[in-house]
Amino acid sequence: MRIGEFSRRVGVPIPTIKYYLRQGLLSPGSLTSPNQATYGPHHEHRLRLVRALNGLGGVPLARVRAVLKEMTAPDATTLGVLRALREHETEPDQKPGPDYDRARTAVLESFARRGWRTSPDAPEVRKLIATVLASRSLGHAELATAALNAYAEASEHTARGEARYIAQGRDPRDRAERLVMAALLGDALQASVRRLALEEAVRTTRAPGGSV
Amino acid sequence: MRIGEFSRRVGVPIPTIKYYLRQGLLSPGSLTSPNQATYGPHHEHRLRLVRALNGLGGVPLARVRAVLKEMTAPDATTLGVLRALREHETEPDQKPGPDYDRARTAVLESFARRGWRTSPDAPEVRKLIATVLASRSLGHAELATAALNAYAEASEHTARGEARYIAQGRDPRDRAERLVMAALLGDALQASVRRLALEEAVRTTRAPGGSV
Repeated sequence: MRIGEFSRRVGVPIPTIKYYLRQGLLSPGSLTSPNQATYGPHHEHRLRLVRALNGLGGVPLARVRAVLKEMTAPDATTLGVLRALREHETEPDQKPGPDYDRARTAVLESFARRGWRTSPDAPEVRKLIATVLASRSLGHAELATAALNAYAEASEHTARGEARYIAQGRDPRDRAERLVMAALLGDALQASVRRLALEEAVRTTRAPGGSV
Repeated sequence: MRIGEFSRRVGVPIPTIKYYLRQGLLSPGSLTSPNQATYGPHHEHRLRLVRALNGLGGVPLARVRAVLKEMTAPDATTLGVLRALREHETEPDQKPGPDYDRARTAVLESFARRGWRTSPDAPEVRKLIATVLASRSLGHAELATAALNAYAEASEHTARGEARYIAQGRDPRDRAERLVMAALLGDALQASVRRLALEEAVRTTRAPGGSV
């Protein structure tokens, strides 16, 4: 198909498609004349992937390129793809001290009890420590600890389903795409579903004395 | 305490504190001389709340003010606070059509089966529809449907714990703060915990033929 039809089909404006082509996020179409190119299902899939990473997942375009490269490498590995996916995420400042050490121990112990082989230096661990510290400083330590365990329990279950879906991919490239989709879709779905579940649970759990 | 000690204690630079004061995000300290003010535990708590909303929760400062106002209103309600919290979130473009209607029905039915009284017009519902559509357009419809149900199931459980924590608050204002903390902390914790759980699940679920 020509660029006009390509644009309508995917719902992405032509100038944006041209920008992605210049940035190397899409491979060029097949030239049918010196200034006319056609695009096929491979381009369409790739464009949707770029939009999903950038739009749904909030991955900056510069990082989208690195993720796509990692996903389509002949020796793609799970950890490599997950690393590329999270490299754009900023990390909170950390203030070392006894509070920090206590929060770090609580986070790592909660994973060790489940038998997870989580690296103590993973960026996610540092984020969790920052979250636990913020919660404690506001007097909600109890909530942070309970929530950490509840979320680990719940995620263990959903992650197993996602891992099965990934393992069913027909080749490493397909499995890499499934992994990225599971990670991104999960982020997008989970945030909205959680908010609705909280709204529903608050509705049915009345405070002893009235509003909120 | 004076502003210097206040700043060190909370780890927020003095110019930032002054900016928050000018913006009305913090109430002025008590004047001990024409140009010297002191700050107490109430200021400290409020400052930590501003930082948690803005830093952890990614809520823009202009919106932080509205959330704080809603939280501390004498007639604060759960839905009002949740609404103020999410008003800054941008909504995806929606393309009406049969695909859209199918995705919408799938999302709403999955909640109706659980007995949730979710409004079909909630911004979260529109986001979920966009996510399901993006997933389908990439050939991962199966993943989206399975994940939606798995996340609803998991969230139901964690939300009940959070709702109990909220209901235990001593007054409407405390309950409003607990609600905001549960929503924000949950977002921050869940995203990191999910990623680590996925990493662990992928480690233990090997693909039949090798890498990823």
